[in-house]
Amino acid sequence: MPRISNRGSQMPQSPIRKLVPLAEAAEKQGKTVLRLNIGQPDIPTSDKALAAIRNLKSNIVEYSHSAGMESLRRKMAEYYKRNNIFVDYEDILITTGGSEAITITLLTCLNAGDEILVPEPFYANYYSFATSTDVNVVAITSKIENGFALPPIEEFKKKITPRTKGIIICNPNNPTGYVYSRRELEQIRDLVLEHDLFLLSDEVYREFVYDNEEFISVMSLEGLENHAILIDSLSKRYSATGLRTGALVTKNKQLRDTALKFCQARLSPPYVGQIAGEAAIDSSDEYMSGMFQEYLSRRKCLVEALNKIPGVVCPTPKGAFYVMAKLPVDDAEKFASWMLSDFSYQGRTVMLAPGAGFYTVGDLGKQEVRLAYVINVEDIKKAMVCLEEGLKQYPGRTIR
Amino acid sequence: MPRISNRGSQMPQSPIRKLVPLAEAAEKQGKTVLRLNIGQPDIPTSDKALAAIRNLKSNIVEYSHSAGMESLRRKMAEYYKRNNIFVDYEDILITTGGSEAITITLLTCLNAGDEILVPEPFYANYYSFATSTDVNVVAITSKIENGFALPPIEEFKKKITPRTKGIIICNPNNPTGYVYSRRELEQIRDLVLEHDLFLLSDEVYREFVYDNEEFISVMSLEGLENHAILIDSLSKRYSATGLRTGALVTKNKQLRDTALKFCQARLSPPYVGQIAGEAAIDSSDEYMSGMFQEYLSRRKCLVEALNKIPGVVCPTPKGAFYVMAKLPVDDAEKFASWMLSDFSYQGRTVMLAPGAGFYTVGDLGKQEVRLAYVINVEDIKKAMVCLEEGLKQYPGRTIR
Repeated sequence: MPRISNRGSQMPQSPIRKLVPLAEAAEKQGKTVLRLNIGQPDIPTSDKALAAIRNLKSNIVEYSHSAGMESLRRKMAEYYKRNNIFVDYEDILITTGGSEAITITLLTCLNAGDEILVPEPFYANYYSFATSTDVNVVAITSKIENGFALPPIEEFKKKITPRTKGIIICNPNNPTGYVYSRRELEQIRDLVLEHDLFLLSDEVYREFVYDNEEFISVMSLEGLENHAILIDSLSKRYSATGLRTGALVTKNKQLRDTALKFCQARLSPPYVGQIAGEAAIDSSDEYMSGMFQEYLSRRKCLVEALNKIPGVVCPTPKGAFYVMAKLPVDDAEKFASWMLSDFSYQGRTVMLAPGAGFYTVGDLGKQEVRLAYVINVEDIKKAMVCLEEGLKQYPGRTIR
Repeated sequence: MPRISNRGSQMPQSPIRKLVPLAEAAEKQGKTVLRLNIGQPDIPTSDKALAAIRNLKSNIVEYSHSAGMESLRRKMAEYYKRNNIFVDYEDILITTGGSEAITITLLTCLNAGDEILVPEPFYANYYSFATSTDVNVVAITSKIENGFALPPIEEFKKKITPRTKGIIICNPNNPTGYVYSRRELEQIRDLVLEHDLFLLSDEVYREFVYDNEEFISVMSLEGLENHAILIDSLSKRYSATGLRTGALVTKNKQLRDTALKFCQARLSPPYVGQIAGEAAIDSSDEYMSGMFQEYLSRRKCLVEALNKIPGVVCPTPKGAFYVMAKLPVDDAEKFASWMLSDFSYQGRTVMLAPGAGFYTVGDLGKQEVRLAYVINVEDIKKAMVCLEEGLKQYPGRTIR
């Protein structure tokens, strides 16, 4: 039997994936599993997108241009303009979700063995994309104590080597919900320019910034025209994760021309996803603000409830629909498994994403979990009752 | 300005891509460009697929399971059974087109620097997928003189090194239309077993096998359970290239479990493409045989017309919807450019795919072109009149 590749063996299995069979088993036992572990919102997809799918005009579902449909790219450029991101439609390549945009950017900008700096905790799949492109992730740790603000820029500087080619940030952040300030972004900008790095900014949660916090795109920072790559996706913005319509946006023409060659190899992004995505950009203000208000209520409910549970610490994040919380447990991964396998309260239990999956070093995040507020307020309340009870009963509780 | 990666610089630009601006310019000048260069059929998508899109039930276009929807996987397993390919639904991972299935297979099976053998001419994007996964393509040349049959197996043996990890075949073949015989496939099987290699078989043109030629899948060859990977796609079978619904099929559990980790990183294949793909598998016999008969008529028309043109040689391929033809020209790439830029006949010209793009060595295929019979018989006839006239007038003609 031929051996699989080393990169295959090295691909991480996230702690969430390990929990899936436990959750399925819990459901088979009749427990209701309240899932706070994943980023699949329960909010209906934009009606504009649904209507575009149901009214599909063409009788041939064909390849689009490898860079995406021009009409969608033009529509996105208008959308960006309204959001103070001034790009031409030609600066936009449509990708199969934000995932493909990241992979293609890594392939285009970094060689095998090059290094990319990422503040941790970070979206676990960045590590997978780096593994599949033979790029080394170098993490700089942010801390729950200051709400996961950008680590001191000196910490980044210490990690720079001749192989460092870029930085990835996620803003608003998954998993922490943190929104970077202008000052923080300018510090990153200066570092990027000083060391001539690429800066990938994953801004798929742009619409979800609360408390009048200012959202700043890397595309609006002066001097970064040749360095900045905006990673985008319509998945979260229009509650349509299955469309797989994302984008790689950059003013750097050489980068774009090269990225396009990777796009050409896979021929085209999904046709229906592009048609639906283009329509979604015209979603009504009512739809958009309804979704925003819903997340706002959920955040309030979730953060307040978490902080009322003895021993739990949860900063109030300004963006996205995630929080990272610190629990009074010996090992959040064990606790998350225990909740599914050995616990229920009023017939319910809660599925959490163990924090360790968002860090490069196992021990960091050992007491943390990510919670996605993608279920309604009533269910969040039930989940919090359940979590509080679970923490009382859990044998590995650290604070009595 | 930071430098892009070496792998980015090395990504090939296919000769077809270079012709696109020339074709656009020709159309601006008022010429009708008959496009025989690409694999985008003009045949309507299966009505079952279109109906499934237009009747989309769910109001949330969500992530599916990373391995694809179970109902689609089960439906595909039934389809395979009817085609003498006996696999379980769990052996099937749904991918974003056949393209992603190939990329994920290369990542799973080969390390950076490993080698994969491919009979040439081959589908140009194999080279791109190999470049983006840092795999080295080692080509074994097949010849137009014997209709692009499998090269002698000794030629494969000569190219095997300690870094050889696999073989890719495309059956029925793009670009040659060749269908491998049982004897040829058994020779490959024996080689694969002798050297413990992976065998990737791209069988997306399975439905298009003519003249009662027997189609044999690698999945039906005994002894290859741990070695064979079937690459599939619904794009061509149901004339729905924009769905981006493909599959990676293998009985090798370790390979599949590892490939699934790459699938998990990108979360899910497109939702609507899966719904439509599942419906398409129930396409009526009338639709399927109508499409088959149409390609059969086109092949007859194209191959006969080509062989009537003085100096042109074109074998009659048994499958797919492509032919490779040898033209009496100094350089098929120059000829293809000249046809678009400097020639028209009755207001028309023809766009061809230069053969060099399907070979690793520039000079091979210098007199060859690939023609895809994806336009109707009337247009094929017009294109052949135009090609004959073009060959008369072309200054670089080699046979007078």
